[in-house]
Amino acid sequence: MRYARISVNGRPVWGRVGERDVELLSGSPLEGDPDVIGAVPLDGAVWLPPVVPPVFYAVGMNYPRHIEHAAALGNAAAVLPDRPEVGYRANNALTGHRSPIVKPAEVEGRFEAEPELVAVIGRTLRHATYDEARKSVFGWTIGNDVSARAWQHQDRTFWRSKNSDTFKPMGPWIETDVDALAQTTTLRVNGAERAAFRTGDMVFDPFDYLVEMTRHVTVHPGDVLWMGAESTCQIEPGDTVEVEISGIGVLSNPVHLEGNHS
Amino acid sequence: MRYARISVNGRPVWGRVGERDVELLSGSPLEGDPDVIGAVPLDGAVWLPPVVPPVFYAVGMNYPRHIEHAAALGNAAAVLPDRPEVGYRANNALTGHRSPIVKPAEVEGRFEAEPELVAVIGRTLRHATYDEARKSVFGWTIGNDVSARAWQHQDRTFWRSKNSDTFKPMGPWIETDVDALAQTTTLRVNGAERAAFRTGDMVFDPFDYLVEMTRHVTVHPGDVLWMGAESTCQIEPGDTVEVEISGIGVLSNPVHLEGNHS
Repeated sequence: MRYARISVNGRPVWGRVGERDVELLSGSPLEGDPDVIGAVPLDGAVWLPPVVPPVFYAVGMNYPRHIEHAAALGNAAAVLPDRPEVGYRANNALTGHRSPIVKPAEVEGRFEAEPELVAVIGRTLRHATYDEARKSVFGWTIGNDVSARAWQHQDRTFWRSKNSDTFKPMGPWIETDVDALAQTTTLRVNGAERAAFRTGDMVFDPFDYLVEMTRHVTVHPGDVLWMGAESTCQIEPGDTVEVEISGIGVLSNPVHLEGNHS
Repeated sequence: MRYARISVNGRPVWGRVGERDVELLSGSPLEGDPDVIGAVPLDGAVWLPPVVPPVFYAVGMNYPRHIEHAAALGNAAAVLPDRPEVGYRANNALTGHRSPIVKPAEVEGRFEAEPELVAVIGRTLRHATYDEARKSVFGWTIGNDVSARAWQHQDRTFWRSKNSDTFKPMGPWIETDVDALAQTTTLRVNGAERAAFRTGDMVFDPFDYLVEMTRHVTVHPGDVLWMGAESTCQIEPGDTVEVEISGIGVLSNPVHLEGNHS
């Protein structure tokens, strides 16, 4: 099943995505078993981030080849982690499938896309076993962890380098029936492939993370866990960037340049 | 006016806090002008965090004397910031006035309270002037940025050192009518004063932060901004820790030791 949130007359509505239509639902499938209350054509649907998480978790340094690459570029922090440690992103930065990524006018240097698998939590979980962690995942979606590298290196935190408005496209929907770790992640710019990697080639998988995290934190339905990227690529205003994960879908966003705000 | 969220029959309800009663409201005062739908006695009210923020912002290194102290202890990151840079905390860690702070059994070393002023945002804001930032604050509450120092130094992120469940007491209410920066912050353990400082003695004030933040992010009603602490103190299971900010109130929490979870 594919669940999405779409904008209907300017309001967010949950939907179930079919071949031609999106069936509109009376509520969140994360909170029960909603009724079908209508339908709209798939063409022309306005996609919202499929969930607005209570907590937005994100993993860094989780693909061995990405760590090797970062270390070769002189990033002293790029060492293979010996345990799962999670960080955060911010909801203001979320945007939906097909909405623009807005590059701030003052960003200099590398402005990059990072294609990521996203686990969407379906149950309240604390002190989880690996098996309980597996069962707690409601479904899977796709994230693009857009990053402004100069800010990332200059700042004490990731606040603007990774959390400026529109820097976190997520979607297009949540796929509940897929072996997410057996898939391929592909990154394209203007239709040309820029990277492809095995989605599951991680240092620690999502369930490893949830076991470690829930030793100290409670995760809740709707929380998301972004799983990191093996490869990244430069994007520029005028580009369209696509992240595909086989068995889930394609997250596509145009890149715009920020207008003036004097 | 003092607005709070309390638990009524296990459900969160907004309230307006009076001398003897809490008037129950039909909705959030952040989203309109709710009706009074009842009242409960002030004594015995079960206090929830006064808001669950869409984004939970937190400032570090914002009191000159705290930075001097951290630098003297050998923290190389403890330098006076030259611009406002914000970080994040996580909603799972929030707990209300009078609820326990649970110290994880495996925490070693210093376990500390950090008394903080919290700004609660009331308006959607982007590209704000200083004056717009001032007007965007709905009210003020109190936070205790509980921190496990060994984890803070060992880990790449603050995920468990500052965001384990119950590590972020906030409350008891939001005070809308106070000159928050002209107040005194006092930290007490078991009734004994452990620190007192001028709340407004900050490197950058909340409005400086909001001007800088909203160059790149949109803040929304209900977002919170924790403003950092000048002084901290050790807390232990069995203690009761109080953070008072004059003109706002007293946030009080007992400290418990985590039970076994085998």
